[in-house]
Amino acid sequence: MPGNSFGTVFKVTTFGESHGKAMGCVVDGCPAGLSLCTEDIAGELKRRRPGTGELFSSSRSEEDVPEILSGVFEGKTLGTPIAIIINNIDQKPGDYDELKYLYRPGHADWTWEAKYGFPDWKEGILSAIARTGRSSGRETAARVAAGAVAKTFLTAHGITIKSWTAAVAGIEAPQPGEAGFNLEETKNNPLCVPCKKTAEQINAKLEELKAAGDSAGCLVACRINGLPAGLGEPVFDKLDALLSHAILSIGACKGIEFGTGFTVAALTGLSNNDVPALPPNYAMSTQNNAAKASATFKSNNSGGILGGISNGMEVFFRAAFKPPPSIAAEQSTIDRSGNPVRMAIHGRHDICLAPRVLPVVEAMAALVIADLLLQFRQNIGKHFQTSF
Amino acid sequence: MPGNSFGTVFKVTTFGESHGKAMGCVVDGCPAGLSLCTEDIAGELKRRRPGTGELFSSSRSEEDVPEILSGVFEGKTLGTPIAIIINNIDQKPGDYDELKYLYRPGHADWTWEAKYGFPDWKEGILSAIARTGRSSGRETAARVAAGAVAKTFLTAHGITIKSWTAAVAGIEAPQPGEAGFNLEETKNNPLCVPCKKTAEQINAKLEELKAAGDSAGCLVACRINGLPAGLGEPVFDKLDALLSHAILSIGACKGIEFGTGFTVAALTGLSNNDVPALPPNYAMSTQNNAAKASATFKSNNSGGILGGISNGMEVFFRAAFKPPPSIAAEQSTIDRSGNPVRMAIHGRHDICLAPRVLPVVEAMAALVIADLLLQFRQNIGKHFQTSF
Amino acid sequence: MPGNSFGTVFKVTTFGESHGKAMGCVVDGCPAGLSLCTEDIAGELKRRRPGTGELFSSSRSEEDVPEILSGVFEGKTLGTPIAIIINNIDQKPGDYDELKYLYRPGHADWTWEAKYGFPDWKEGILSAIARTGRSSGRETAARVAAGAVAKTFLTAHGITIKSWTAAVAGIEAPQPGEAGFNLEETKNNPLCVPCKKTAEQINAKLEELKAAGDSAGCLVACRINGLPAGLGEPVFDKLDALLSHAILSIGACKGIEFGTGFTVAALTGLSNNDVPALPPNYAMSTQNNAAKASATFKSNNSGGILGGISNGMEVFFRAAFKPPPSIAAEQSTIDRSGNPVRMAIHGRHDICLAPRVLPVVEAMAALVIADLLLQFRQNIGKHFQTSF
Amino acid sequence: MPGNSFGTVFKVTTFGESHGKAMGCVVDGCPAGLSLCTEDIAGELKRRRPGTGELFSSSRSEEDVPEILSGVFEGKTLGTPIAIIINNIDQKPGDYDELKYLYRPGHADWTWEAKYGFPDWKEGILSAIARTGRSSGRETAARVAAGAVAKTFLTAHGITIKSWTAAVAGIEAPQPGEAGFNLEETKNNPLCVPCKKTAEQINAKLEELKAAGDSAGCLVACRINGLPAGLGEPVFDKLDALLSHAILSIGACKGIEFGTGFTVAALTGLSNNDVPALPPNYAMSTQNNAAKASATFKSNNSGGILGGISNGMEVFFRAAFKPPPSIAAEQSTIDRSGNPVRMAIHGRHDICLAPRVLPVVEAMAALVIADLLLQFRQNIGKHFQTSF
Repeated sequence: MPGNSFGTVFKVTTFGESHGKAMGCVVDGCPAGLSLCTEDIAGELKRRRPGTGELFSSSRSEEDVPEILSGVFEGKTLGTPIAIIINNIDQKPGDYDELKYLYRPGHADWTWEAKYGFPDWKEGILSAIARTGRSSGRETAARVAAGAVAKTFLTAHGITIKSWTAAVAGIEAPQPGEAGFNLEETKNNPLCVPCKKTAEQINAKLEELKAAGDSAGCLVACRINGLPAGLGEPVFDKLDALLSHAILSIGACKGIEFGTGFTVAALTGLSNNDVPALPPNYAMSTQNNAAKASATFKSNNSGGILGGISNGMEVFFRAAFKPPPSIAAEQSTIDRSGNPVRMAIHGRHDICLAPRVLPVVEAMAALVIADLLLQFRQNIGKHFQTSF
Repeated sequence: MPGNSFGTVFKVTTFGESHGKAMGCVVDGCPAGLSLCTEDIAGELKRRRPGTGELFSSSRSEEDVPEILSGVFEGKTLGTPIAIIINNIDQKPGDYDELKYLYRPGHADWTWEAKYGFPDWKEGILSAIARTGRSSGRETAARVAAGAVAKTFLTAHGITIKSWTAAVAGIEAPQPGEAGFNLEETKNNPLCVPCKKTAEQINAKLEELKAAGDSAGCLVACRINGLPAGLGEPVFDKLDALLSHAILSIGACKGIEFGTGFTVAALTGLSNNDVPALPPNYAMSTQNNAAKASATFKSNNSGGILGGISNGMEVFFRAAFKPPPSIAAEQSTIDRSGNPVRMAIHGRHDICLAPRVLPVVEAMAALVIADLLLQFRQNIGKHFQTSF
Repeated sequence: MPGNSFGTVFKVTTFGESHGKAMGCVVDGCPAGLSLCTEDIAGELKRRRPGTGELFSSSRSEEDVPEILSGVFEGKTLGTPIAIIINNIDQKPGDYDELKYLYRPGHADWTWEAKYGFPDWKEGILSAIARTGRSSGRETAARVAAGAVAKTFLTAHGITIKSWTAAVAGIEAPQPGEAGFNLEETKNNPLCVPCKKTAEQINAKLEELKAAGDSAGCLVACRINGLPAGLGEPVFDKLDALLSHAILSIGACKGIEFGTGFTVAALTGLSNNDVPALPPNYAMSTQNNAAKASATFKSNNSGGILGGISNGMEVFFRAAFKPPPSIAAEQSTIDRSGNPVRMAIHGRHDICLAPRVLPVVEAMAALVIADLLLQFRQNIGKHFQTSF
Repeated sequence: MPGNSFGTVFKVTTFGESHGKAMGCVVDGCPAGLSLCTEDIAGELKRRRPGTGELFSSSRSEEDVPEILSGVFEGKTLGTPIAIIINNIDQKPGDYDELKYLYRPGHADWTWEAKYGFPDWKEGILSAIARTGRSSGRETAARVAAGAVAKTFLTAHGITIKSWTAAVAGIEAPQPGEAGFNLEETKNNPLCVPCKKTAEQINAKLEELKAAGDSAGCLVACRINGLPAGLGEPVFDKLDALLSHAILSIGACKGIEFGTGFTVAALTGLSNNDVPALPPNYAMSTQNNAAKASATFKSNNSGGILGGISNGMEVFFRAAFKPPPSIAAEQSTIDRSGNPVRMAIHGRHDICLAPRVLPVVEAMAALVIADLLLQFRQNIGKHFQTSF
């Protein structure tokens, strides 16, 4: 199974099945001398736990306690690989017994079987479940742990990544710059919606869906601030290409757009081009300043990326996540013999991927940015003098 | 400059600056015994040439003649690296002289300067232009050449990739399944729009924009047929994640979506889940058949991908491309000293990236699929017995 | 710190500092369905523990207990990443206090300082020690654990790797084919010398060196049997090139040679060329047989490798390891201020890297072979049909 | 066919079959602003041409004329991929017709057949020959071209790589430090032996072997000077491990050793440890100086590498190359039907790999050092301030 590693210089490998002993990651390439403790990681992991209210709960209730096995000495990173593990406390493979002969609609059951077939041991069924443990949402715990390391690195260089719930079930919150948009508000509602009124509307809609045993899709917005201009490579490893790879690698993500996004298809060159507008007294000849400068274009339709390279403006993207496929309402499907059956998925499942997916989105973005920053330093050397 | 290579087993490296001697690529990992000739490559390159009508023309008129330097013997691939070069015939660095002291709005001038600074030789200006040659649209000629090799491989295994222009300047053509959608129609209009009436509307709009010295954004749709179920890796290298990386690495692409795409944010589990619907007499126990089967879900909201793995349905995605930033209309910008100036970009430029970007989209998709097919074979061995 | 991963398809990442919480590895790419238990790993780890006799002891006495965190379910590999950790029981950073201001001759103290400098926290000294933990011999425990997984895979396909102590302190044991060579004898003496008489001579020499506070260099021989012909890639990734990379990555290794090795410099084409000698009734036309066949050349000067590719004969190499630099005898050196000083290194250290290095040599060879086997299957598909 | 690329940051991909249109390479990752012209490359290529005297000639007489297709502008590297091609002028696949049904002893014929089998087209025989073109000595022309780029980079930073013929057919030249060793002498004899007397002895021996239709093995020595301390990664990517990978990837190389090499097996800690001996007034506290300093150990048994990391002393290694297997003398072998036959290989072949292999050895060493230097800068940033 390839594809368990991500990144080039700041490189992460994750391991663990949802019903195995532990989830974990190895973060290779993190610079030395960075302050890092388990609390930094635990804080991010807490954000991806199921909510505690009526709406936002899943069957797992364990608290994720990260343990750092290597790469940190007396609270500082050593520059060596950082291994982090999170024990799985209440794994219960038996939970899924009744489902094991069915293909759950919207799940990877069918694609895993097509890909891996059934090995011979123990009917193959349990083992298939054990294997699908890698495409479980629980795998993202390891990403969030790795992302927490990356975030610590980024924070030390003045770079912040902040995501929020932009829409749920078709109900959209105001966008940045629009009336009603208030990022502070995300702290006041469990869904992390940046508008009190929209949060209430969404809440009402979700209660309705919950009563019907249904679930909801959502839109997540994310901004990255403090990036130097110059990040991203001009050909295959464009900043937006790498971010797309990272975000679409999160299960259930069905699309991503940068800046004005899909709207560009309806725009013209005149309306879409962002006009550079540096102050007249800006010292253009100083290369170091240029590299560090926050550009001041008159608009940001580009979402902070030109030719695949950051331009110093805020990087902004939005991603769409499908409704969780596990629902209590009865659905049609077929069993493993091809017979049509009706089924309902019991237990407590997420009604919407937001807000739990927010720290995962931020973690994946952080991994991309940390990796590019370290490659960037390598590329231009003297042009980007920092202390890391 | 990292990021000139793409892929893992079927791996492509491109080289060449738009105003240098030649563009080219090395395709490493293509299986032996595949029929391949320069015509296969020339045919795809021809699709990305500027159009000949009033609307669709750019300043370059050379015909791209590919030369295969290695990896092919008497019309068959050897399994060794395939090097292909395309000489640049009418490169004229001088063309851009008047622009060299300005930051063109919507272009990578600023980001390249921030990233690379100005080396010392010859004022640095020309060299910067020479370097931006890597982010020129011309670089995609090398991708199309490499993609032609991948396509030949895919065709031999019954896999087809077909893209079309889904919208221009906000005028949308009917989607597959909608009245008026006719893929045959793409052969009849130079824009490759799958609807005669829409093509006419778009044409009228483009003439209007051309008169105003403006340009248009567009939406490209792409379908991949004949894929076996089981392609894509469950964690970081999901099929949709790799396709997103590939497509967003094309300059000017601002977003991608799979299946119902961004619409999922407004859907619910019940409305979005695709219901499996295999025929009752289907032999589920035969693993090989399962892997090869075209699944017959009752809908394809997922765009053919579940859990990052192909499910045997058609893979479908759409991508948004911004309006070309080089326009004849006067725009505001600043020069390299930071002074505000007005500018207009003369010469003949594309008014819209469609249809020239279509073979590039298909080439990048082909590279992803070829790479995954070869990895897939490695993963499951006996489950996927083919002749390659 | 790059370079903590090894391999392409069968890929290993190791982590852990000798004085940290745990050593460990993640083995990514191991096929599914392989029987694997902690005992398989513990058995190999036991071989690299310090000996218990008078001569063969080091300061560490803990038993290495491996724990498998992921990738194995009910005794079978899942195909997912296998994470293995080995807790460090009696780490005592204080042990080295008296040495921390000196450059130990033959150690990496100086090169680590040149490479990493001293970070600022806590005098920097302890942290430097914590970092050198990655070049400690203890890091090889993680390699042996990963190698045990690879060996299990190889054993399942009839491939065996066996190393022995070929010489110590200049006293050479008979070579294969020479009178007195008896591989069974390696079980009877703790040094794993394949000749009783030589083992006694070496033992006497080591007692003498121990009395003098000195240490001894050694030569390790290794044979790999059961390899199919066809392993290794013809250009940069030749089988011997990859094995050299692997074995020279073991600390203290100063050279490697294949087949007749350095002796070829004195040979001629006529004397060195191995003559093919397949039985006349051998069915040459059957490609599958050809790939699997053990070739029967009349000699094996090549050490089983031609053009970087295995030829079906036994692969044979020898590697030289320097005497352990930590010795009780007084040596000259300088301190971190550049002043000349005399020093002696107390505690219990290995007097010779053999026999502890044998499982490490085998582990690294196993990683190379497992990786190439999995790539080989990918390359030629139908030519190499096996059950894995 | 994997394994056509080498390096991580300074990354080279080679292509071309010996009987195809052209050999070539793409050098990706070379820094911008470096002076580079075709003469730099042609000069190195000339060194690997067959000699013109009686002894040193092969069948190919074309002059290798490199063409730079990209990555260089007005004599300076752009930082973009540098593609270099060398046309094959007098390829004659027919030359080998009489050999195509035989397995030549010492050649890769058998291993290639075992690895790739015979594809179906045109009897398969010619195609097999076309494929073995990748393991031909001619492939090294592309390496030498790439190495010339790396050497230009190294020279700009004061690093030199110099190899010579240390022994032929068992006749050894004096080693550095021994009486009679004179590196200037390598310019005076075509074999590049650093001792006039030894050169004459070797010449006499080679004439004798030539008369007998035989060939000779050789030993090549190589020193790398000017390296900063700190190059090489402590775990899998040790400097000596990477150099071993590089050198053993040259066809016909059978072994490598560093510093005192295999002799260490007979040494003790006291006799082998190199004693640090910096001048007392050396400013140890200055990290930058430390990194750049040429250490002054009292001996260099380690060959300039401790713990896999350069220590500032000269890096020294020796490699053994087998006698060329193509000889005029009659040999036994079998044909492709398994029948024993007698054969002789006509035409003009190298009688010894030295001196033609010297620029290949230097090229591969240069690729390793350039790659590590660029990674090193990335690792420690401020500790290694240079202008590249």
